[in-house]
Amino acid sequence: MKVYFDNAATTQVDKEVIDVMTEILTEHYGNPSSIHAHGRKTRTIIENSRKTVAKLLNCTPAEIFFTSSGSEADNMAIYGCVNDLGVKHIISSAIEHHAVGHTLEHLEKQGKIKLSYVKLLDKGIIDLEHLEELLQNQNGPTLVSLMHANNELGNLLPIKSVGEICKKYNAYFHCDTVQTIGHYKIDLQNINVHFITCSAHKFHGPKGVGFIYINHKVKIKPLIFGGAQERNMRGGTENVYGIAGLTKALEISCSGMEEHAAYIQGLKDYFIEQLKENIPGVAFNGNSEGQSLYTVLNVSFPESENSEMLLFSLDIQGISASGGSACSSGSAQVSHVLMGIHANLNRPSVRFSFSKYNTKEEIDYTINVLKEILKIKSKETV
Amino acid sequence: MKVYFDNAATTQVDKEVIDVMTEILTEHYGNPSSIHAHGRKTRTIIENSRKTVAKLLNCTPAEIFFTSSGSEADNMAIYGCVNDLGVKHIISSAIEHHAVGHTLEHLEKQGKIKLSYVKLLDKGIIDLEHLEELLQNQNGPTLVSLMHANNELGNLLPIKSVGEICKKYNAYFHCDTVQTIGHYKIDLQNINVHFITCSAHKFHGPKGVGFIYINHKVKIKPLIFGGAQERNMRGGTENVYGIAGLTKALEISCSGMEEHAAYIQGLKDYFIEQLKENIPGVAFNGNSEGQSLYTVLNVSFPESENSEMLLFSLDIQGISASGGSACSSGSAQVSHVLMGIHANLNRPSVRFSFSKYNTKEEIDYTINVLKEILKIKSKETV
Repeated sequence: MKVYFDNAATTQVDKEVIDVMTEILTEHYGNPSSIHAHGRKTRTIIENSRKTVAKLLNCTPAEIFFTSSGSEADNMAIYGCVNDLGVKHIISSAIEHHAVGHTLEHLEKQGKIKLSYVKLLDKGIIDLEHLEELLQNQNGPTLVSLMHANNELGNLLPIKSVGEICKKYNAYFHCDTVQTIGHYKIDLQNINVHFITCSAHKFHGPKGVGFIYINHKVKIKPLIFGGAQERNMRGGTENVYGIAGLTKALEISCSGMEEHAAYIQGLKDYFIEQLKENIPGVAFNGNSEGQSLYTVLNVSFPESENSEMLLFSLDIQGISASGGSACSSGSAQVSHVLMGIHANLNRPSVRFSFSKYNTKEEIDYTINVLKEILKIKSKETV
Repeated sequence: MKVYFDNAATTQVDKEVIDVMTEILTEHYGNPSSIHAHGRKTRTIIENSRKTVAKLLNCTPAEIFFTSSGSEADNMAIYGCVNDLGVKHIISSAIEHHAVGHTLEHLEKQGKIKLSYVKLLDKGIIDLEHLEELLQNQNGPTLVSLMHANNELGNLLPIKSVGEICKKYNAYFHCDTVQTIGHYKIDLQNINVHFITCSAHKFHGPKGVGFIYINHKVKIKPLIFGGAQERNMRGGTENVYGIAGLTKALEISCSGMEEHAAYIQGLKDYFIEQLKENIPGVAFNGNSEGQSLYTVLNVSFPESENSEMLLFSLDIQGISASGGSACSSGSAQVSHVLMGIHANLNRPSVRFSFSKYNTKEEIDYTINVLKEILKIKSKETV
């Protein structure tokens, strides 16, 4: 059996999305900046995509700028604040995605910003009281950069409350929403946020395309200079078929959201139940059983002679899961998120992440494989 | 008849390229940074692509970094020189692509660099003697940024000679090769250059993907911070299917290069001949009849009552061509390149650019349409 339980890393692309992309790749190759018929056609595709995305997020099309990834969008927000809005103090957390964390560390090393980390409560929950304390002591324009959902733990930030706190202290708020767009309803008229970011491949769209929402009250300069594309905000010929693919994927995700959320939460609940029943000493990293992504479950397994090889053993049995975020696994380092929440690193941790394409049968298979690897005797045979 | 004569703006995607992309989109969706089977498959696709690209350019795979566009690659080279290599003086020209020109203007405005423009000789040819003069007066690390082929005029830079000059004066050399990769043989062991850049959609590959070559002697930091992707040089999940599409397109372009070059040069020569024969007073911007891209012909038409509407009239007759570069046409400004070479802006200029998919019949049709628009009586009927 082949089981893909790494949907927080990337997702299978929906067939309808591939069809839209293939049609554009085949038929509509004009440069959207060209004023002739070939160009007008692709310009229309992009601007219709922008309108659709804006409608789904309840913002205006002029606030959406397509990028090549969520990481680029995160960089754009942070650099824009520092270079163009006079931000010299940034408040973030130790468990942000590297697209945020490494950018901030680089800016701090260059002496361009003072970087403060908000404290984490038990289970890696952001301490909002400490955030307020930090904001009370601000000196000049400040940015708060906190992710909506942690990609490794699943922990959800109360984005509306954080937005209100930022408003109270007149701080800019950048929220990395890469793990939540397409999975949760986001109403931008209802949240005080200046920048949110998106990556299409997290909700069954294509890799290589994302977007940044920039609140109309905020004016920043491009990260990538060039032609007049994206209303002078991002140089480079637009990835027309990718943008259309992102839009199709977001439409599908939003239209089936409640149904998929219920189905996937059901899988997660069943997995938790089966793990507790079958794996003595199992525990969960982060706030898995509380305010948490329905797509992510970070499991802490008991130490055993095979525990170091757990991920590899799962892989051999056809189960794809991950130790931390995929983005950092290339560097073969211990997860900064698990370190950030002071998890017991002697216990092997595995992030299982789910999508609408997963099934209960896959969970049953995985439980059996885990029992074999961890040499746990079945109750029936005891 | 529908005629696409805007191949310098973007090209029709080869069917084999679309097939490769569609297969990967459908079958291989793993995150290349994941260590499980799904991830290893896409990692292999990317690293094989990198090897193929490196082989075709005669460099090492470690010198190739995939990006989302030529513009991003140009920005990366320039910012890298300024932020990480101590460059405070950049020598460029007034007719570079906006991905270079606007980036340099921004850095100059910020006070980060001194910007010098090398003089242009007749027809927009770069004055290499003046380049040497500018380099003789350098003070500290200097970057020369000159494009291999001008996207509006077609003018070709003697890249090897410029590389030698840069070597003589110990300057960094960034060459925007977006219009030449896939069209000319580039042997990086034979050229002294530190950075070259590529955009796949200029040679029948997909939009949204390109690369930067960074000579192994040079170490710069990322433009986009994030995970460990591209050996810590570019954050963001890799655009796997796009990278494979770029590679396929480059393989096709390089394997058929001589044949296509001869065919397309034949079209350009025929167009020049037919224009001279049929349009009294026709002239050419740039070095069209000398060292010039075989893909580009920038035509200066005589003034006439319809001349302002020339591009629109061509469009109505199904002919897609452009006034300047597509990247700037969105801003509805006069071409900075034509201004840079002091072209007569009262005469309407049209850039026709060709590919292997064009035919002589399309040229004949275009000549007839031009005669109608410009109200030129056929010789036979005079």
